[in-house]
Amino acid sequence: MIPTRNTPEVLDRARELVVPALRAAIDRLSPDLRPIAEYHLGWSDATGRPSGGNGGKGVRPALAVLSAEAVGADAAFGVPGGVAVELVHNFSLIHDDVIDEDVERRHRTTVWAQFGIGPAVIVGDALLALALQVVLDACEQNSLRGAPGSKNNSGRATACIVDATAAMIAGQALDMAFESVPSVDIEGCLAMEAGKTGALLGCAASIGAVIAGADGHDVVALDRFGVELGMAFQAVDDLLGIWGDPAMTGKSAWSDLRQHKKTLPVAAALATGSGAAEELAALMSLAQLSDDEVARAATLVEQCGGREVTTSEARFHLDNAVASLNASGLKERARDELIEVAHFVVDRES
Amino acid sequence: MIPTRNTPEVLDRARELVVPALRAAIDRLSPDLRPIAEYHLGWSDATGRPSGGNGGKGVRPALAVLSAEAVGADAAFGVPGGVAVELVHNFSLIHDDVIDEDVERRHRTTVWAQFGIGPAVIVGDALLALALQVVLDACEQNSLRGAPGSKNNSGRATACIVDATAAMIAGQALDMAFESVPSVDIEGCLAMEAGKTGALLGCAASIGAVIAGADGHDVVALDRFGVELGMAFQAVDDLLGIWGDPAMTGKSAWSDLRQHKKTLPVAAALATGSGAAEELAALMSLAQLSDDEVARAATLVEQCGGREVTTSEARFHLDNAVASLNASGLKERARDELIEVAHFVVDRES
Repeated sequence: MIPTRNTPEVLDRARELVVPALRAAIDRLSPDLRPIAEYHLGWSDATGRPSGGNGGKGVRPALAVLSAEAVGADAAFGVPGGVAVELVHNFSLIHDDVIDEDVERRHRTTVWAQFGIGPAVIVGDALLALALQVVLDACEQNSLRGAPGSKNNSGRATACIVDATAAMIAGQALDMAFESVPSVDIEGCLAMEAGKTGALLGCAASIGAVIAGADGHDVVALDRFGVELGMAFQAVDDLLGIWGDPAMTGKSAWSDLRQHKKTLPVAAALATGSGAAEELAALMSLAQLSDDEVARAATLVEQCGGREVTTSEARFHLDNAVASLNASGLKERARDELIEVAHFVVDRES
Repeated sequence: MIPTRNTPEVLDRARELVVPALRAAIDRLSPDLRPIAEYHLGWSDATGRPSGGNGGKGVRPALAVLSAEAVGADAAFGVPGGVAVELVHNFSLIHDDVIDEDVERRHRTTVWAQFGIGPAVIVGDALLALALQVVLDACEQNSLRGAPGSKNNSGRATACIVDATAAMIAGQALDMAFESVPSVDIEGCLAMEAGKTGALLGCAASIGAVIAGADGHDVVALDRFGVELGMAFQAVDDLLGIWGDPAMTGKSAWSDLRQHKKTLPVAAALATGSGAAEELAALMSLAQLSDDEVARAATLVEQCGGREVTTSEARFHLDNAVASLNASGLKERARDELIEVAHFVVDRES
């Protein structure tokens, strides 16, 4: 195992840059929607009173800021990208909770469970549209200021967000389709995870560079880094979803198995076709699993090598991510910080 | 009353251009989502068998095609704009049906009622992302082909769609907020309708010109035309929602009153503060209205002048729309066809 590391300094630095800009963006929402968005982001409680949440680990904003710095631009070019990616991410969380009928997220009642399905649908829609407005406005302002490389890049910056969003939606659709089939092969599982998680992290890790006017190899290397990191991120998520410490993750023990999620450890275990895999398949076909059954299922996934395959997968994509950066001509300091964030993501326990 | 006119030829002409491109766009959706979108568009039944629907009157595609021709560009420049606007419109219909819990649209079961809330949410999201991809791809292709004025307009074309979408979402949020208040003033009602309907028609009537590289006064005039036409369109919708012929509209008689919708005729009637308005307010506060009560409410709306105000409003915005075009230097033939479409929209009976 890789030793647990300290939280990279860049996460705090990026949060301090991006959160005020995110708040300014949320202020543009109509007064009917803003309180719901602020609730979801943990900035207020359901009655609108301010609360202390800061909205997650801040990996995406850090990637966006570093992506600008990696091509020699000021961190400020990464800020609108970080805001946009956070908005898209939160749009997807709000809609996913509707789709999955999840009533709790980050130890709080989900938006649809708190405010109703209609408000959750519309506020998610609003966050997606807002994300694009933030990017378009930033590109226009950079262009008006005559920032270097800022001409004619609003299309590329928008495409970065839109293509990632479309891939994420396709991944979510695949995830939904998996619910109604008895088993999923490893390739299908990885394709789903590349869409659901990889695409938006690829965008996060390159959009600051695109907004700053970079092009070509640097942007490709950064996007590749983000996609690979997204795959590693998701593999770790899958591990934590089964073997994570409930006190750290805020989820019940073996929660993904309880919910019959066909994540990579399960897909890899079932693919072995062994006797243990058959026993696992039988358990996973039950409508509801007892505590004993879910513990047994977790043991079987591990016996079939599902945990090991997934740990290797996380390591493999982390290595690919780092290799992508080493092959490029990016600024050294930002590159080192990107690598630090990547290790943090893979070593995390929640 | 304005006499009922024939269907403008441009509606068929634009449909023949836009529908194949719309089908090509829908083909890009993931296989999990495509059948649901095709069902919603009336192209197939719930089992995936082709059916004969062509998806509405085709006003938006016609506006998009004419907006390109109005600035002297080929109709082809309007086609991706028409596709994008249709996709955004259908995204909003699918989500609105979830939000309003409507089980029937265009004489068919709505998407969420047929496939479930999750699929309806995700397919709507996918259509919105696809709309932006269509516009971005078209701008990139035009730029690669060296089309005149095509450099650097992808940002403006995307902003056209995104800003209209954001305004539409804010209008829908306002509409939802109106459900929980006893009455709505006329200004609030018009602001909601400008968002819900005006913004996207403004986009439809200008995006072809933007994609073709036009700028300045022509685009402003076309956008203004569309926004005003949208307001007229919505006023007519409000009239049909109360006094439309059920055989033509496919809705029950006085359907908007049954659903307690606070449309312009109702808002205008209540604003008079007369005795009849008080009786109307009392009826509208009932949880459910009998047939006699809903008929009485319609009579009261008319007695209070709500029907007349709304008819005048439609006429007023139609005149504004036409005046906007007359003040501009647009191509005469396209301008005449835009005016023809505008009259068709206002004179329609369904």
